[in-house]
Amino acid sequence: MSAEIRAVTIRPTFTGTVGVVLLLGCLRVLCLNTQLLPRQGAVTYTVSDSISYMTYYFEQQIDHFGFLENGTFKQRYLFNDQHWHRNGGPILFYTGNEGDITWFCNNTGFMWDVAEELDAMLVFAEHRYYGESMPFGPDSYSDAKHLNYLTSEQALADFAVLIKYLKETVPGAQRSPVIAIGGSYGGMLAAWMRMKYPNIVVGALASSAPIWQFTGMVPCGVFYKIVTEDFHKSGPGCSESIRRSWKAVDNISSTDEGLEWLSGEFSLCSPLKRKEEAVGFKAWLQETWVNLAMVDYPYQANFLQPLPRWPVKYVCRYLTDSTVPDKPLLKGVAQAVKVYYNYTGSAQCLNISQTATGNLGYIGWFYQACTEMVMPMCSDGVQDMFEPQTWDFGAFSEECYAQFGVRPRADWVGTIYGGKNIKDHSNIIFSNGGLDPWSGGGVTRNISSSLVAIMIPDGAHHLDLRYNTNYDPQSVLDAREFEVNYIKLWVTQAAKTP
Amino acid sequence: MSAEIRAVTIRPTFTGTVGVVLLLGCLRVLCLNTQLLPRQGAVTYTVSDSISYMTYYFEQQIDHFGFLENGTFKQRYLFNDQHWHRNGGPILFYTGNEGDITWFCNNTGFMWDVAEELDAMLVFAEHRYYGESMPFGPDSYSDAKHLNYLTSEQALADFAVLIKYLKETVPGAQRSPVIAIGGSYGGMLAAWMRMKYPNIVVGALASSAPIWQFTGMVPCGVFYKIVTEDFHKSGPGCSESIRRSWKAVDNISSTDEGLEWLSGEFSLCSPLKRKEEAVGFKAWLQETWVNLAMVDYPYQANFLQPLPRWPVKYVCRYLTDSTVPDKPLLKGVAQAVKVYYNYTGSAQCLNISQTATGNLGYIGWFYQACTEMVMPMCSDGVQDMFEPQTWDFGAFSEECYAQFGVRPRADWVGTIYGGKNIKDHSNIIFSNGGLDPWSGGGVTRNISSSLVAIMIPDGAHHLDLRYNTNYDPQSVLDAREFEVNYIKLWVTQAAKTP
Repeated sequence: MSAEIRAVTIRPTFTGTVGVVLLLGCLRVLCLNTQLLPRQGAVTYTVSDSISYMTYYFEQQIDHFGFLENGTFKQRYLFNDQHWHRNGGPILFYTGNEGDITWFCNNTGFMWDVAEELDAMLVFAEHRYYGESMPFGPDSYSDAKHLNYLTSEQALADFAVLIKYLKETVPGAQRSPVIAIGGSYGGMLAAWMRMKYPNIVVGALASSAPIWQFTGMVPCGVFYKIVTEDFHKSGPGCSESIRRSWKAVDNISSTDEGLEWLSGEFSLCSPLKRKEEAVGFKAWLQETWVNLAMVDYPYQANFLQPLPRWPVKYVCRYLTDSTVPDKPLLKGVAQAVKVYYNYTGSAQCLNISQTATGNLGYIGWFYQACTEMVMPMCSDGVQDMFEPQTWDFGAFSEECYAQFGVRPRADWVGTIYGGKNIKDHSNIIFSNGGLDPWSGGGVTRNISSSLVAIMIPDGAHHLDLRYNTNYDPQSVLDAREFEVNYIKLWVTQAAKTP
Repeated sequence: MSAEIRAVTIRPTFTGTVGVVLLLGCLRVLCLNTQLLPRQGAVTYTVSDSISYMTYYFEQQIDHFGFLENGTFKQRYLFNDQHWHRNGGPILFYTGNEGDITWFCNNTGFMWDVAEELDAMLVFAEHRYYGESMPFGPDSYSDAKHLNYLTSEQALADFAVLIKYLKETVPGAQRSPVIAIGGSYGGMLAAWMRMKYPNIVVGALASSAPIWQFTGMVPCGVFYKIVTEDFHKSGPGCSESIRRSWKAVDNISSTDEGLEWLSGEFSLCSPLKRKEEAVGFKAWLQETWVNLAMVDYPYQANFLQPLPRWPVKYVCRYLTDSTVPDKPLLKGVAQAVKVYYNYTGSAQCLNISQTATGNLGYIGWFYQACTEMVMPMCSDGVQDMFEPQTWDFGAFSEECYAQFGVRPRADWVGTIYGGKNIKDHSNIIFSNGGLDPWSGGGVTRNISSSLVAIMIPDGAHHLDLRYNTNYDPQSVLDAREFEVNYIKLWVTQAAKTP
C-alpha cells in the first residue's frame, strides 16, 4: 500500500475526453443506449473545502476469475478516518463507478456529512479502467484483449479484496462493519456488492441505481417517458414544443439557408453544412434535454457550465407555445439550450460534440454497455417527446462488434444479478428521485422488510447522495435521515453478531 | 438443444486415467492436497436398472466473465421427467462435480428414490472440463491457456444459464422451483449455487461439502484426524498399528532384501527397487486408508474392487497388535490393504499408481486444487496416525507452477464464497457423515433456521445421496426424510411467491 497525501483543490481532471470525441460520432442506436454516463456526467458540484483524504494505491489482481493472467495493477482509493471510531465504527465504502474517483468523492457529500454522526471511516474506491486505475497502464484501452477485464464482476471482486485487505491491515478495523454506498452505476455496484458479497458488506445504499434497466425487466420507453414528464410538469407547452421541434429541425435543415439560420441561432462553433448533419444535431439536443432532467436540482449548481435552480422549469420558460411556426419554435429551443450550455454567457459558441464532464470514462462505459450493461431504450413520440426510435439489439450488437470486437450479452446481467427476483437478499436501500429518468429502471417499491425503497418525489439523479443544502426539499432530508437510521441499524446488527 | 436417448447400461467410461498416471507421481505436498477427488473416486455402485434418462447437450458460453472469448461448447446434461408434474413440480438439479456426469447420476440414488414423492424432474448437469463437456474438445487440457476457464465460478454460471434455458424452453417448467443437489465438490457447488444465484435455485442440498476446508477456516489436521478416529474406533490396536507402520516401512525398505520382501508381501505389480521408492509406497498406503474411511458404508458395495460392509472394521481385524515387530506388523498391513484392492481375490497384483475410479477427471481436479480449491492439509503423527507433514503453501505453489504454469490463490475462495460468514444466505441443508474425513471441513452446526446442518453419525462420504438400502442405519434414513421435508417446504414457499 503506497500512500500520498493530495491537495484537495477541486480541479477536474480530464480523462476519457478522447472517448467523448470518438464516441459521440457513433450511430444513434449506440448513443441511445449508453446514456447512463454522459447524463450523469453533466453533474458537478461546488464542493465544501473542508474535505480531505489520503490517496492510496492497492495492488489488485487483473483477473479474479482466471489464473492465466496473474498480473496486478494499482487500484486507487481515497481514505478518511477523521471521524472514525476504531473497534466498531463503520466503514462507508463508495463503490466507484465509471469515472475518476476524486470526482465521485467530491460529489458524494452525503458521506462527508454523516461521517461524524456515524463515527465512520470513509473509503472511495476507484473502478478499474477509470481515473488512474488502469490495469495495463496506457494500453488498457488499446484493444479487446486489454479491455477484457473491464466487467462489473471484476470490479466487485476488486472491492471485496480491497475491503478484506483494509479490515486486516488498518489497526482497529477488524470489527468495523462495511456499508457499500454508490449512486447511478455505482449504486448498482453497491446493491450487487451486498447481493454477491454479504460476507463483506453488511448493507448497501444504492442511490438512483437502475438495476432493472435491462432486457425484459422494464419497458424500453420508460426512460424517455420520465424525461418528458419532467418537462411536461415544468411549464405549459414545454414538452409539446420539444416534441414538435424535431420536425421543425428537419424542415429548416432541408435548405442551405435553413442550415445557416440554425447554426446562427444556436451559435454553433461548427456550422451545419449538410442536411444529414441534422441527425447529430438532434441527438445533441436530445442529450441536452435528458441531462437537464437528470440534474434538475433545487439549487443553483455548477455543472460543466453553471445552471440555475430547477433548471428544467427555467428552460421551459422559452418553450411555452408549441403552435408557433418552425423558426420561432426553434428560437425558443435555442434559448433553452443556451441555459444549459451558456448560463453565464461566457461561452463563445456551442459545440455539439460535447454534452458533459470530462471526469467520466466514456470509452469504458461504452465498452461496458457493449458487453454486460445492455440497457434497452426506445421512444415513440407519443408517450414521450422524442422521435420514434425502436430498440434494435441486432444493430446494436453489430455496432459494438465494429467498435470493440465484442458482442453484447443481453441476458447475462439478469442471470448473474437476479433481475426482478432479488427477494432473498437483504439490507439494501434503493433510493430514487421522481424527476430522475433512471428511476424508471430502479427499485421503487419495498421488496421486503430489509430491501426497502425510498422515493424522493422532488429528487433528480442521486440527489440524496449530495451535500445538504438550504434548498433541499423536505423529501430528500427525510430520505437521508431514513438512510442514516438504516445504516445505524445495520451497524447495531453487526455488533450483535458473534 | 440436441438430444439422444442413451442406453442405461452402467458401464464405467474411463476418462482422465492419464491424470492418474501423470499425477500420482507428483510431490507429496500436492498429493496431500488434492484428495477430494481420488478418495471420492473410490466409490461406485451397483445401480438399480430402473433408471433411464435422456442425454442432451447445451450450447454453453466458454467464458461467462469476459467477452473476448465468445466461443461456445456443448455441455452435457441428463434429463428425466418421468415423475415430474408440470406447472409446479420441482426440478432437482444435480450440480455436477469433477467427473463424468453419468457416474454421478448413477451414484445419486437419492434423487431417483425421491423423484416420485416430490413430483420432480431430474437434471444432472456435467461440470465443464469433465466427462464429455470439453470447452476446447481434445485441446481442453493442452495448456494453461485452454484450462483458463476451468473454475467453480464458470461452472456455477453454466448451471445458472442452463437452468434458465430449461425453465424457458421445457413446456410447463416456468413455474418449477429448482433445488440444487450435490455431493462432495458437487455439494460445495450446490451450496454456492444457492448463495450466488438465489434467483435461480430456491434451495440447496449440499451433502458432504467441505466448504470450509480452506485456508484459515479449519485446522489443517482435521481431515487426517477423522480418518484416524475411524480406524481407532473400528478395532483395538488398529490406528496404532498404522501409526507404527511408516517407520516399519522405512526400516524394512532400507535394505534390498527388505524391498524384495515388501514387494512380495504386498504382491506389487512393479517390485520396489530402491529405498527412495518407499515414499511413493507410503503415499499409496495413506491414500488407501483415507479411501477406506471415506467409503466406510454399512453395506457391501462395489468399488473399483468390491468391498465388504463396514470395510474399516473389516480391515482392522488384521491390525490388532501394534507391538509386534516390523515384519509381522507389515504382514497385517498387507492383508488389510488387500481387502481394499483384492477382496474377491481376482487381482493378480497390486499397482501402487492407482487408488480409485477412472470416472473422475484427475488432471482437472489437480488444476482446480492448484488455482482456487486450495485445501490445506497436514498431519502430525500424534493426533493422527500419519507421518508428520506440515502444510507448505510455498512449495505447493511452486509445484503448481511447474505443473500447470499457474499459481494458487489461497484466499480467493473465502472472499468469493464467504468463508465462515455465510449467515445471510438461506435455504441450504449441509449434511455430513461422522465417518467422513471431509466432515472436518463441512458445516456441521445450524447457522440459522434456514441454513441447517445434519450430522449422520454412522455415515461416510455423502451416504445420504445414495440409494436406500436395507442396511442403511436409521440416522441416514432420518436424514433423507429431513431433506425431503425441507425440499417440500421450499417448493411450498416458492409456490406462494408471486
